[in-house]
Amino acid sequence: MVRVAVVGATGYTGLELLRFLGGHPQVEVTCVTSRKEAGKPLKEIFPFLTYYRDLILIEPSVDEIAIRAEVAFLAVPHGAAAEMAASLLERGLKVIDLSADFRLKDREVYESWYKVRHPVPELLKEAVYGLSEVYRSQIREARLVANPGCYPTASLLPLIPLFREGLLLKKGLIIDAKSGVSGAGRGAKLRLIFCEVNEDFCAYNVAIHRHTPEIEQELSRAAQEEILVNFTTHLVPMSRGILATIYAWPREGVSEDRLRKTLRDYYAPSSFVEILPEGVFPHTAHVRGSNRALIGLKFDPRTGRVILVSAIDNLVKGASGQAVQNLNLMMGWPEETGLNVAPLFP
Amino acid sequence: MVRVAVVGATGYTGLELLRFLGGHPQVEVTCVTSRKEAGKPLKEIFPFLTYYRDLILIEPSVDEIAIRAEVAFLAVPHGAAAEMAASLLERGLKVIDLSADFRLKDREVYESWYKVRHPVPELLKEAVYGLSEVYRSQIREARLVANPGCYPTASLLPLIPLFREGLLLKKGLIIDAKSGVSGAGRGAKLRLIFCEVNEDFCAYNVAIHRHTPEIEQELSRAAQEEILVNFTTHLVPMSRGILATIYAWPREGVSEDRLRKTLRDYYAPSSFVEILPEGVFPHTAHVRGSNRALIGLKFDPRTGRVILVSAIDNLVKGASGQAVQNLNLMMGWPEETGLNVAPLFP
Amino acid sequence: MVRVAVVGATGYTGLELLRFLGGHPQVEVTCVTSRKEAGKPLKEIFPFLTYYRDLILIEPSVDEIAIRAEVAFLAVPHGAAAEMAASLLERGLKVIDLSADFRLKDREVYESWYKVRHPVPELLKEAVYGLSEVYRSQIREARLVANPGCYPTASLLPLIPLFREGLLLKKGLIIDAKSGVSGAGRGAKLRLIFCEVNEDFCAYNVAIHRHTPEIEQELSRAAQEEILVNFTTHLVPMSRGILATIYAWPREGVSEDRLRKTLRDYYAPSSFVEILPEGVFPHTAHVRGSNRALIGLKFDPRTGRVILVSAIDNLVKGASGQAVQNLNLMMGWPEETGLNVAPLFP
Amino acid sequence: MVRVAVVGATGYTGLELLRFLGGHPQVEVTCVTSRKEAGKPLKEIFPFLTYYRDLILIEPSVDEIAIRAEVAFLAVPHGAAAEMAASLLERGLKVIDLSADFRLKDREVYESWYKVRHPVPELLKEAVYGLSEVYRSQIREARLVANPGCYPTASLLPLIPLFREGLLLKKGLIIDAKSGVSGAGRGAKLRLIFCEVNEDFCAYNVAIHRHTPEIEQELSRAAQEEILVNFTTHLVPMSRGILATIYAWPREGVSEDRLRKTLRDYYAPSSFVEILPEGVFPHTAHVRGSNRALIGLKFDPRTGRVILVSAIDNLVKGASGQAVQNLNLMMGWPEETGLNVAPLFP
Repeated sequence: MVRVAVVGATGYTGLELLRFLGGHPQVEVTCVTSRKEAGKPLKEIFPFLTYYRDLILIEPSVDEIAIRAEVAFLAVPHGAAAEMAASLLERGLKVIDLSADFRLKDREVYESWYKVRHPVPELLKEAVYGLSEVYRSQIREARLVANPGCYPTASLLPLIPLFREGLLLKKGLIIDAKSGVSGAGRGAKLRLIFCEVNEDFCAYNVAIHRHTPEIEQELSRAAQEEILVNFTTHLVPMSRGILATIYAWPREGVSEDRLRKTLRDYYAPSSFVEILPEGVFPHTAHVRGSNRALIGLKFDPRTGRVILVSAIDNLVKGASGQAVQNLNLMMGWPEETGLNVAPLFP
Repeated sequence: MVRVAVVGATGYTGLELLRFLGGHPQVEVTCVTSRKEAGKPLKEIFPFLTYYRDLILIEPSVDEIAIRAEVAFLAVPHGAAAEMAASLLERGLKVIDLSADFRLKDREVYESWYKVRHPVPELLKEAVYGLSEVYRSQIREARLVANPGCYPTASLLPLIPLFREGLLLKKGLIIDAKSGVSGAGRGAKLRLIFCEVNEDFCAYNVAIHRHTPEIEQELSRAAQEEILVNFTTHLVPMSRGILATIYAWPREGVSEDRLRKTLRDYYAPSSFVEILPEGVFPHTAHVRGSNRALIGLKFDPRTGRVILVSAIDNLVKGASGQAVQNLNLMMGWPEETGLNVAPLFP
Repeated sequence: MVRVAVVGATGYTGLELLRFLGGHPQVEVTCVTSRKEAGKPLKEIFPFLTYYRDLILIEPSVDEIAIRAEVAFLAVPHGAAAEMAASLLERGLKVIDLSADFRLKDREVYESWYKVRHPVPELLKEAVYGLSEVYRSQIREARLVANPGCYPTASLLPLIPLFREGLLLKKGLIIDAKSGVSGAGRGAKLRLIFCEVNEDFCAYNVAIHRHTPEIEQELSRAAQEEILVNFTTHLVPMSRGILATIYAWPREGVSEDRLRKTLRDYYAPSSFVEILPEGVFPHTAHVRGSNRALIGLKFDPRTGRVILVSAIDNLVKGASGQAVQNLNLMMGWPEETGLNVAPLFP
Repeated sequence: MVRVAVVGATGYTGLELLRFLGGHPQVEVTCVTSRKEAGKPLKEIFPFLTYYRDLILIEPSVDEIAIRAEVAFLAVPHGAAAEMAASLLERGLKVIDLSADFRLKDREVYESWYKVRHPVPELLKEAVYGLSEVYRSQIREARLVANPGCYPTASLLPLIPLFREGLLLKKGLIIDAKSGVSGAGRGAKLRLIFCEVNEDFCAYNVAIHRHTPEIEQELSRAAQEEILVNFTTHLVPMSRGILATIYAWPREGVSEDRLRKTLRDYYAPSSFVEILPEGVFPHTAHVRGSNRALIGLKFDPRTGRVILVSAIDNLVKGASGQAVQNLNLMMGWPEETGLNVAPLFP
């Protein structure tokens, strides 16, 4: 059994980590931290996590975490995560960081979008971007994994194989993404209370969402040229799920079949990603609570564009499920260990 | 008092017509029809419509409608609407048709998208497209108004003034639209039951939605050249509301301010359309139950695109509210008569 | 036009007051206050209240309110309301208090349930309990109206006429009530955020809810003997609506028909209260946004109990709508003025 | 591996059976039936059930089921279930019936509440009522288990131990129960479509719900005297979950502590039932997707009543989870096999 810490255990991604780690046969969660709730039993915050009856939340002390655990998941805000990651790596732990701190390779890009200085830019090069299906071999060797954002995961899975194969033009790419409310975190904010969100639909952070440079970085790596996107995010009155609707121009002569086959071939070894048949498009309800990603696509001959639609659970494949998948890769375990959970429907 | 018929009174658009007409000072609803529920008191179907205590639903007989009413709203399926409209016009009624039957000027386009023969193509030329703010003067003179679709209303309001002024390029236009469930009507379908819709988000009719030619027709009229769009629709787990996120390329040198000012000037005489200030984007909850349309916009200098976001209540400005607005225009009454209802929030 | 102040305008009951007063032909809202948001235009908080474009929120200063208004609605927390009411009455205003401060006639009962000293107990006797249909004549003469709680309104409307007529036994009364989330107010609390409420149903404040003594006081007045109730409240994942399910023992020989007829007779002059026919029970969706109250009932011969079910919109008949109804009574206007709004469905 | 059939696989309880059986280490699902969808791959109906890629739905033929399976779960309507159960038992299968057909011991009670003749009343005596925690030893020996209704499960778990110990009076018992919409099944009915259910709360089947005699039968067995209840059901706008609020009179001198201790002792060997501490009441969200049952209680000294509140997931402990639990008991496996799934929150 590998001893694992969940740093920042009282948010929704912390909770989701605990849900999956609690059913993971190779892992023991030995440390849970919370700045606000330190001293309380975990059960008081999440009374339904019955398999963690005895864990007490502690302050996020690096020394204490290093004593208790061999691997740490960081589910804390950006900025805080980077410093803690550096200290834990020094003490010999492996780190999977769910924040944005190690996702962007270019420190200046990070600092201009996140408006903070990066405390440990020297680690940016070492960190592996944890999009499991794309960077499997690098993740297997990694000490430090930068777990992707939820929107980037939904956006990149359909696009990277197509850009790698040179099937899409670089111009005019649009990602119109929609997320359930848990993506906004577990904070007491007026704009998140039930009556403000229920029966409402809106766009937010139009043209300024921080996941934009993360998406562009990875698409540019895949395409080997600079890719810009229009990326727009919307809030859906539901708890979980992201759906991304993507508009791209295939190179001339590239058919819908070829696009679909390219995706199918690329994800053939990946049990969590499914490419849907012609005319079928994903529902977020069909991935709810699971680590699956669904991708549907259609070429529109009228406009020459392909429309790609992808769905994930933002808290699972978009955060904690993928983090556990990365743990499995880092540990040399089968990728699906602890993650074979069917979606909850309805 | 003008005597009015609501043909197809037991669906959601019929209900919304009754809600607004019930508070309209110049109108008396004298006839409500329903094929399925004929013979029942209206109150049995919608017990909360207390101001219609005595109306009995009748079969949709043209003769009977013509006896009872001077104006007819048609809230029945396409195909059925056209035939009825023709007969009612012959009998001297004015007709506001909420179906798609008279929206498309080109009979072949209609027949290829709707897969039925048009029964009275000779009326297509006479029918006025009922986008109230755009075709006010023609509506005032009309006998037959083709009330716009809900998605087209949300899509066209932000775009028509900009295309008219030549501020947008014709290429690469994308309309990514999202609708509450009432847009799918009041039918007993498995895919519409609560447990299948709740906590789900999905795209549907990708690249084949029938509102596409309607949008393209009106944009092409505004631009005076052929405009094609990628138009994608999504289902939001809420009852009411449409939000359209629109991506367009402004002509070089056209600033966000100029776009906003053009929209503000165009809608200055229109009390139902509001152009939001810089950085503010609409919420569907802010139009719920009202005839308002909200439009926000942002120019993204990184990609050169403008993102326009509009919100309406699909049942009100997207259907029955606009139909009553058109009635007001046809009758020479102030446009807002009976429609001055504040949104219901929360 | 009567000049009216809404003190505490930025909560949901404040908003609802503004919605109804905006459409009220005899009233001008001249003053809106908010401790937190003073100085901001009202439009910034509720951008969809377009008929209040020019009102600026001010600090709740008694002097300022007294200059601007003849009547004040108090939508502020208990404790604060009582002091302000006293000062406004001194300055000659009429006051409709939506807090709990003047609902309980017995100061000790108030202080033991609300855990604060009552600042102006001398006003308790004068204040009229504003259950409009029950205390119409007293409200017409009142300077100070204690607007009932949402749960008490839903509970008392079906019970008071039956207790007045002596048709129910005093023993074993149970009120099992369920409320939408807007009843919890517009505060940024973790337990109210969307993901904590959505897809959840729970009981809260079991056996200790503060509306208990209010219900018991009014039932005891109606029955002319002391009535105790088991009163349990639940949170429903929806924005608006209260449904109360009430279990009572009719006196021997009292039939369902007699109970229904008693209610119908009592509410014959009241256009907002409707007694449903046999076998029909209310839906909260059928009162949403309106000032209506619906009551259904059934006698269960197996157990000898009658089950009464009532539905109101907690923000309208349960708060702001009834407050406007009370204003109408106090001013001698028709009771329904400004309140003839149909429910919004769906 | 035991070969198992799911008869009626395309409803929500069928789906839930498949979800749990798919992760059950001792079971292979070899047969899935559907009258309506026979011939289609299961994956077409529930595309997210990826571990059943190859199963084809067949007509519910007894012979075919008997060839393919050793145990059959019946998730078909009452009436149909009884006949099929009899035939399958004859062919040597074990049967777990999720319908109401074998729950009531008294054929006349069944026939008067369900309005059909019972086709095989001779089996009523043999069938074991499958409330797992209460009838464990009988279930272990059973050929035919009558899986309890969802409402009865939520109602009986808190009450049976207290009636067995004689701690409650028989008079005046009230069960006010609330259910998510999946309890109404997966049928295309107008009253179940999203817009009719969303933002609504209502009572239904008041004083005539068919689960009433089932609850009374089991309470009477526990109390060894005839118990009558007022049982009222409500529809909550959420997909899953039942909460039952129960009002009972403890015998004089019985304290809240004693009641809580009695429940804790009774359920000490039962890992799925949890008795909450003083002042804590259950949330349905804390059992969502899991086989857990939560029970909270409070004695109200003002009225002398105890209020018990229980929560289950109607599709899991209220149906398919308990059915799998009963399978485990019948097969001599640990009761929790395949059921150790944490709730999905949020």
